[in-house]
Amino acid sequence: MPEATPSPHCIVLDWGTTNFRAVLVDASGTILDRIETQDGIQSVPKSGFEAALAERIAPWWAAHGLLPIYASGMIGSRNGWVEMPYVAAPAGIEDFAKAVRRVALRDGGSILFIPGLTDTAVKPFADVMRGEETQLVGFGLDRDATVVLPGTHSKWARIAQGRIASFRTFVTGEIFGIVSRHSFLSQVAKPQALPDWTAFARGLDTARDPKAASGLLSRLFSVRTGWLAGELDAGEMTDYLSGLVVGSEFREARELGWFKEGQEVGIIGAELMAEVYRRAAEAFGLKPRLGPTDAAMRGCLAIAKVAESSGRQAKAKPAAGVTS
Amino acid sequence: MPEATPSPHCIVLDWGTTNFRAVLVDASGTILDRIETQDGIQSVPKSGFEAALAERIAPWWAAHGLLPIYASGMIGSRNGWVEMPYVAAPAGIEDFAKAVRRVALRDGGSILFIPGLTDTAVKPFADVMRGEETQLVGFGLDRDATVVLPGTHSKWARIAQGRIASFRTFVTGEIFGIVSRHSFLSQVAKPQALPDWTAFARGLDTARDPKAASGLLSRLFSVRTGWLAGELDAGEMTDYLSGLVVGSEFREARELGWFKEGQEVGIIGAELMAEVYRRAAEAFGLKPRLGPTDAAMRGCLAIAKVAESSGRQAKAKPAAGVTS
Repeated sequence: MPEATPSPHCIVLDWGTTNFRAVLVDASGTILDRIETQDGIQSVPKSGFEAALAERIAPWWAAHGLLPIYASGMIGSRNGWVEMPYVAAPAGIEDFAKAVRRVALRDGGSILFIPGLTDTAVKPFADVMRGEETQLVGFGLDRDATVVLPGTHSKWARIAQGRIASFRTFVTGEIFGIVSRHSFLSQVAKPQALPDWTAFARGLDTARDPKAASGLLSRLFSVRTGWLAGELDAGEMTDYLSGLVVGSEFREARELGWFKEGQEVGIIGAELMAEVYRRAAEAFGLKPRLGPTDAAMRGCLAIAKVAESSGRQAKAKPAAGVTS
Repeated sequence: MPEATPSPHCIVLDWGTTNFRAVLVDASGTILDRIETQDGIQSVPKSGFEAALAERIAPWWAAHGLLPIYASGMIGSRNGWVEMPYVAAPAGIEDFAKAVRRVALRDGGSILFIPGLTDTAVKPFADVMRGEETQLVGFGLDRDATVVLPGTHSKWARIAQGRIASFRTFVTGEIFGIVSRHSFLSQVAKPQALPDWTAFARGLDTARDPKAASGLLSRLFSVRTGWLAGELDAGEMTDYLSGLVVGSEFREARELGWFKEGQEVGIIGAELMAEVYRRAAEAFGLKPRLGPTDAAMRGCLAIAKVAESSGRQAKAKPAAGVTS
């Protein structure tokens, strides 16, 4: 039987700090086409988002007309197109859908912004996420779970009773990146093209071992002393550091009560990061359950569907009307 | 009465990774003159140390003859002039004096290298210091104490029964530096010329508060969430970070058993760093006791005096004979 011609239904945007990603999606959530550029929001002037978007998705508009556009993440932040107030946790699909904002585009059509999430129980200042909430929705809120989302700013989140109940940020990816590139070890280490999983596992061991380790500030020096002692060679240092820093995230998360040994943990991440966190989870006695790689798009669609059907946001306003 | 003309007795070198510092000292330990340049060991080729030293201290040699030279710190490391094996803790003045190495100079005279210290009880790899051991000796080993030496790689050390019994490194200064310059906050923060002690104290509070904080990876995100919440302005972020990171060092040190509330802690550091650590110590309920600012020079002289009087090192060898 011939397949039915796929029919584009909408465009889902993931416009982050350093990248622009858009996918063309059919009604069932199948991705039909992709556009990716290096023009993140930090390289676009505040008044230039609409023009930049129109230019990039012009081929889709030309071929398929003014499809609805759904956007989450940093494009809805203070440095983005419109600053969307955060929804407070606990929050589920309905809560996000109630808080979306539709902005009319000059060329016709509109873009629907999905808000981020805040956890006001975190001290001393409320924690925040923008974009990860759609990944969590796409992972599925129907089953209670603890989920980790690896990244520059990793998130641990609790899903309970169909909502994102609470979450906490760890600056793991950022610390790994700047220590690799700018610290004492950057002059010695020779990062390898493929991960050295043995060195990574040694880093995890150091982070996990109560005798070897306390906090991160003292643990980090072991990258240097391991090299001085001839125990880590230049090719192993970066992967050892990776294990040490990711293991420290798991150790902190355990101290904060995010998991106990033997439990299941969801992991939402692409390829290498998912594998890094899967190994760390197993080293800490957890049972990893990997989420779909297109979780953000799925979550965006689920929230947009409820928002569209409620009709609350039927009247689009110009962008100037929603910023403040 | 006219003062006696000061008589130069020796030269003490502090030749570190990024700086060259030499002091001309009389027999009582009074500093008569100083030479400082930006040519640390990393900017001098391995074979060029002797020529670089001779050029810099030529005026002193010309005026006072071939004075003895005493050197500790990174100049005696793998990347320095000769690699001095570490002495193992516990170690006191006699132990360091036994392990010095004298290297004959081509122009006559000699240089005495003082070794660093290792603590093999630290897991997974033995901890190390080079230079701080002379500061500890200069601080005084006659009284049992816990001492912190702030720096790029801060050290906590225990003095017991006249020796340095144990120590541990924290990469506090390095993390503060690279997070300030290269992380998410570097684009927002506006560091001030003078310390904002109120913002610093808030950072200390966050590190100390068991409800607000767990490990460093989660605590660090509060620099961003404080700014997003309007609680920290751009001018406060760097000093808040400083309090957060230094406070994290104290918290880790406490967890590792380095101190209990109410105890005394020695602090060996120059000016601003000593003040930063004095405030942190008080915030953690400690009684700070500041060491002398010339502790390194005092310690060098004390070790050299014992080494010279023992006569063990009377026969100087060329540098090639002691490297390996």
